Parts: sequence; structure tokens; C-alpha cells
Amino acid sequence: MIVALAGGVGGARLAVGLAAVLPPSRLTVVVNTGDDFEHLGLHVSPDLDTVMYTLAGVNNTATGWGRAGETWNFMSALSGFGGERWFNLGDRDLAVHVLRTQALRAGQTLSAVTRGLAIRLGVRHALLPMSDAPVHTLVLTARGELAFQDYFVRERCRPRVQGFRFADSRSAKPSIALQKLIRSGKVRGVVICPSNPFVSVAPILAVPAIRAWLKQRDFPVVAVSPIVGGAAIKGPAAKMMRELKLDASAAGIARHYGKLVDGWVIDHADAKLQTAIEQQGRAVLVTDTIMRNRRKSAQLARDAVAFAQKLGGERTR
Amino acid sequence: MIVALAGGVGGARLAVGLAAVLPPSRLTVVVNTGDDFEHLGLHVSPDLDTVMYTLAGVNNTATGWGRAGETWNFMSALSGFGGERWFNLGDRDLAVHVLRTQALRAGQTLSAVTRGLAIRLGVRHALLPMSDAPVHTLVLTARGELAFQDYFVRERCRPRVQGFRFADSRSAKPSIALQKLIRSGKVRGVVICPSNPFVSVAPILAVPAIRAWLKQRDFPVVAVSPIVGGAAIKGPAAKMMRELKLDASAAGIARHYGKLVDGWVIDHADAKLQTAIEQQGRAVLVTDTIMRNRRKSAQLARDAVAFAQKLGGERTR
Repeated sequence: MIVALAGGVGGARLAVGLAAVLPPSRLTVVVNTGDDFEHLGLHVSPDLDTVMYTLAGVNNTATGWGRAGETWNFMSALSGFGGERWFNLGDRDLAVHVLRTQALRAGQTLSAVTRGLAIRLGVRHALLPMSDAPVHTLVLTARGELAFQDYFVRERCRPRVQGFRFADSRSAKPSIALQKLIRSGKVRGVVICPSNPFVSVAPILAVPAIRAWLKQRDFPVVAVSPIVGGAAIKGPAAKMMRELKLDASAAGIARHYGKLVDGWVIDHADAKLQTAIEQQGRAVLVTDTIMRNRRKSAQLARDAVAFAQKLGGERTR
Repeated sequence: MIVALAGGVGGARLAVGLAAVLPPSRLTVVVNTGDDFEHLGLHVSPDLDTVMYTLAGVNNTATGWGRAGETWNFMSALSGFGGERWFNLGDRDLAVHVLRTQALRAGQTLSAVTRGLAIRLGVRHALLPMSDAPVHTLVLTARGELAFQDYFVRERCRPRVQGFRFADSRSAKPSIALQKLIRSGKVRGVVICPSNPFVSVAPILAVPAIRAWLKQRDFPVVAVSPIVGGAAIKGPAAKMMRELKLDASAAGIARHYGKLVDGWVIDHADAKLQTAIEQQGRAVLVTDTIMRNRRKSAQLARDAVAFAQKLGGERTR
């Protein structure tokens, strides 16, 4: 069993590749929920939805979030009433938020809700929130502490970042299915998807039992660098690194994760950094990491899984 | 000040007429909320919305409910998830339900929510829910007691009606603004719109302080018959009367309301019933009551208001 840790778009793309090369019995995708929030009284889970829609093949490739073939008449009517316009909810997308909110209020876990929705969309692989308990990513900026969506969507990542906090993470347990998986001892590798290290992966790692599990692991952790050629494929990862005075490169990312990652998958564009990362004590695989389409996603997934298997084989020898 | 008691479509049409002939300072529309219900976790107020949309001129004339220019992508996505399809919520219409639900959960009254929404739609006349407390219309049928929307929408009014119950009506107070209006003594007439007597008007009258106010009144109550030529213009009123062994005619409706109504406005088609209604001790005005368009609504409103003024004048002489 391979466990993928995923955030939004980058995570979703690699999850699609992994789902193409591994059967449902061999892949579990664990998704960040630190960016979940309540908006207009609805529980919105942006990363879970991005991964779910992408795995189901109904994602909106134009926007990078939400559903394909989306319409915006709810937002248009909402504007007419002076409602909040800064966070867009599509008419189709709303079905997920309304159903999820209703189910959560009725006492269902986020895991159960997610499973029910994903199955209906035809997703065959296990898709789990990192936790069923709410964890809230907060971004410390020069302008104060901002709720994640305020920073990310309302402020468009403009405020200079000073740090992050994951409210309520200390008491959060992994979702039940993930707890079972951890206890089962069946996990043979973890793949950290090319998602933002600070606001997509860090919230997952902030769940104490997940972090402890990875520290005591008897399997390799491989990560695909979200930074290629000194820039993030999408999102504010590189900007955040610069603001935090970190080296905004694949080598800087490797240093940031340290011993948590055994092997780094980096792009050909960063081949010159292989030695620097190996000198940190990490293994390196250089390959194509730009997931332009599903075929590229599958190829990268195949490379990452083979890399994990190789590192696992070396480990058990 | 004229107070109109209104339910759905018939009520909305006369409300539009009244709003055309009376300034905001002289008209308050009080709407049935016995058909309000929670659906998919959202607070839906069908009659309030029908009256609000119609007063604002954004009502859907094709469906008779909901908003003009509506789309149904939320429902389409909801169906894909196996969600409940029996009650349609349009994409634009959803903005009202989401905003209202959020505001109610935050502790706002239904009156305040309604005022906020109506103002944004450009409605200038006061639009009040009969009560800010929940009252639930239940329909007693041969197949047991049904929640109103189950009877009306899900079962399409097919079950034979035996009676009605308005759960929680005994403890319900009129909405604050209506309480003030009652205390003010400024009301010069009440117009009961041509809405269903059992499921639109009766829930309003089931609020004890509203019923008591009308019993002790020093102003006339005029009603526009919802039955014309032995049939309801829209909805199940005539079917219900037959099932309840009542005379499904304008005269039967007058008998049903009894002394609560001083004057009946009936259609030319029912002119032959004038004497029968007058023999019950009620005044009668025969006019055009079919509101095919806004001009017809305004003409009927003008007739009803003049009729109320005439009866009020006779009363004070």
C-alpha cells in the first residue's frame, strides 16, 4: 500500500497518476483539510474537492479548481443581495458543499461524507481527509494572522509571510481509516505530492499521530519537488520560501523537509541540484515532473513508486 | 394602512396589485410561513419567496415559483450524488436559501432576513412573515399526517385531505413589526388575498394574536374568493373543499370563513352567488378577479381597497 499526501492542484495531478498505475487496493490518498472553512454557512473543503473532482475527471481545467462545465448563477444572484463575492462557488460545485454541510450537521464524519461523494463520482481509490477533526491553517503575515482563505483567495497571497500555525492540530487525530492503515503495518511507502510544503503538506504533518508515524517508519518517504527551476508550478510556494529567507529551489525544499524525506524526485531542469541534495543525505531521482496531462502524471507516478520500491528494497537488505 | 394576508401565487399577484395602488406607507403584506421547511439543511420559505420575487418583478412566470431566468445545474449535480430531487432549488434561488439559512443560524429573525433580501431586490413595501417562530402546516390525509411540502410537492396533492394541523402555532407570536402594527391601531382594513384558505390563510389565522386581533377589529376584512366558477385558479383549494365535504364555490368559501370576513370580492362568473353570500350576512362586490397581468392585479386591488373603504365608512357612520 502506498499513501500519497496531497494538497490542491499539484497533489491532485499526481494522485491521478498514482490512481492510474496502482489499483485501489494499493493506494490511499490523504488530503489536507487545513484550508477547510465555513463560508456562507457551508462547509467548504477546497483541497479535498480538487483531488476528488480531479480523480473523477470532472475537474475544471480552466480555473484549476471546481467542476467542469460550471455556471455561476448562484454567485450572480448572491451579488445582487450584496453577498460575499470573494470566494466563488459554482452552481454544480454547490451540490457538494450543501450535501457535505447537511451530512456533517447530522453527525457524519468528514471521511464518511467524502467517501459517499467520491463513490458517486466514480472515484475507486480511497480518498481520506487527514483528520475528521477541524484543523485551521493560519498564515502569519506582516499584516497579522490571516485565516488561510483570507490570505490565499481574498488577499491573493499578497501579504508577506512570516510563519504558519495550524490551529487545533495538536488534538486532531488522523481520520479513522488512516489510523487503521497506520496500525495495519501494510504501508510500503509514502509519496509526498508536489503540493505547497507550508500550507498543503505541513497541516497534514501537524497531526501528531501522522508525524509520529512518519518518524518511526519502516518504509521510505519520497517527495516530488513542488519547486522546479526556482519557481512553483502553481501557487505561492516559491514566494513563501523567499519571504521566509529559505532557498527557493529543489535543494532548499529538501533541506526544509530534512530527514522526513528519504528520496527526492526532481525535474531535469534541476539536475544540477542532484549532488547538493545527495550531500544532505537524500537519494535523488531526476525525471520529468511537469504533469501537463494524465499521461505525464502517470509516468511521474510510476517513477515515484518505483523509486520508493527501490529505496524500500535497499532499506530491507 | 391596509394589511394583506397572502400565501403563494394568488397572494403574490394581489400583493403586486396592492403595491401598485398603495404607497409603502399604506400597505403591509403578511405572508404565510406554515409551509417553510428545512431542505438539504437550508431554510426554505416558499410563500415568502414567491411574494418577494413577484413584488420585485423577478418571479418565474413559467413555473409559478422561483426566479426568472433560472438554471438548474445545482439540481443536476445533486442528482449525480443521489441527492433528493423532489423539491427543485434553482441556482439563482439558492442564493436566498443560503443567505437566509446563514442569517437565521446567526440569530437573525426571519423578519430581518426577509427585509434585508427584499430591499436588495428593490421591494419598497413592507413584507412580513406572519411570525418569526416556526409554525408547521401538517396535512391530515387518509395516508396519515404529512408535512406540507410532502403533501404538496412530493405527493402532488394526491392524498385525500381530512384536515389540517398547524404545529407550534399556539405559542407563535406575530412577527415584531406586525405586533407593532396591531398595537398602533392604524390598520384601516385587511385584505385576504385569493390564497388557499386551508394551507395559506389558515396558518396565518392560527397565530393566536392575529386571530384575536381580527375578532376584535374596528376595521373591515375583505377577501377575494380563491374559488371562481367552482374551481381554484391555481392549486388544490377546490379539491380540498370537495374532500372535506364543503361546497367548492365562492359561497362555500364565504361560509367557511364566516364572520371573519365582512365583504367578499367575487368574480363576474360567480355573480349568481351574490345573493347566497349576502344571505350569510356578508357584503359582496362582483368584479374581474382573474389576475392575468399586472394591470388586472392593480384593478382588482383598487376594487378591493375601495370596497374595504366603503365598508369601513359604513361601519363608522
